[in-house]
Amino acid sequence: MATISAGPEIDRLIQLLARLPGLGPRSARRAALFLIKKREALMAPLTAALQTAIEKIEICRTCGNIDSQNPCAICTDPHRDPSAIVVIADVADLWALERAQAIRARYHVLGGTLSPLDGIGPDDLTIDALVKRAHDPAVNEIILALNATVDGQSTAHYITDLLHEANVKVTRLAHGVPVGGELDYLDEGTLAAAIRSRTPF
Amino acid sequence: MATISAGPEIDRLIQLLARLPGLGPRSARRAALFLIKKREALMAPLTAALQTAIEKIEICRTCGNIDSQNPCAICTDPHRDPSAIVVIADVADLWALERAQAIRARYHVLGGTLSPLDGIGPDDLTIDALVKRAHDPAVNEIILALNATVDGQSTAHYITDLLHEANVKVTRLAHGVPVGGELDYLDEGTLAAAIRSRTPF
Repeated sequence: MATISAGPEIDRLIQLLARLPGLGPRSARRAALFLIKKREALMAPLTAALQTAIEKIEICRTCGNIDSQNPCAICTDPHRDPSAIVVIADVADLWALERAQAIRARYHVLGGTLSPLDGIGPDDLTIDALVKRAHDPAVNEIILALNATVDGQSTAHYITDLLHEANVKVTRLAHGVPVGGELDYLDEGTLAAAIRSRTPF
Repeated sequence: MATISAGPEIDRLIQLLARLPGLGPRSARRAALFLIKKREALMAPLTAALQTAIEKIEICRTCGNIDSQNPCAICTDPHRDPSAIVVIADVADLWALERAQAIRARYHVLGGTLSPLDGIGPDDLTIDALVKRAHDPAVNEIILALNATVDGQSTAHYITDLLHEANVKVTRLAHGVPVGGELDYLDEGTLAAAIRSRTPF
């Protein structure tokens, strides 16, 4: 990125902002200017929020979620169903399920999906810890909420094989027409799955 | 934006990130997760860079540029032509001209353009200060580098009228075909301007 003559402090700020996902060099410059213009209203609170996050945010030792308490608020919530564990690849997926208020269970964050091409094997994910949790007598269902991609589904198969000995039911998310989706815009795989899994009306 | 169950610290960080230009709620969540995952490599340096910016960045009292020194490095640079002042609406425009290495002169940041619809009048811009600078005997050219929009051009006309008494030449950026541009994709106004201002080959 071309340096600009606004002093090393601003150059450095722009370079760091440009590393955020969704921001390129151009939008990082815009963001830096915006922050400097809103020093009191935005830059100072954002700096404080980042500092707080650095000091407080931890990775939950049970499920891999991120939170300011450890174990996280979900793992310690007494109102959640302790018998089901929802397996997701990433904290972002956990957040998506929580926003949807899809289930009041606990989670297990794998930290990714198996991907031989990217060199990600079972030891790079928290699969061992999941198998251990699945052997807890209180747990009787493992819900695999992994992406409907090749990597996501091969990870699901791998985990299902490992959980064969544990006394748990292994389920996965339903495939079908997205709510609000129009058939005309859906791919053949989704339509075929929606027909196969059709339900009584 | 729906809150997520990741604790108030992360919610606050996401809300603040979502206020940056170019980031919406979804990309702010991604950015927050990315920062938390890269705590040492990115979140800590970014926090430090923001803190430094809060402490050091000032608005140049001469030209309105932002810098860690005041007057700014451009205003105090002895190698710059002191006889020309380039008038721009915003610091982002100053950065764009500096990246292009278009001219080694000094600048004057208006802080916007006149816009009756948005309630922005002459008193909201640094026009008075510009007129004062234009009366400096060392200055003999004011280059209006304002956007080729209705607001930009009416601001240029307004300033030109005010500078009538000052002993300066007032110029504006050339209109024409952008370098690398294809005629087929250009609007009629640009093509007409390019023909009008044609130059000997």
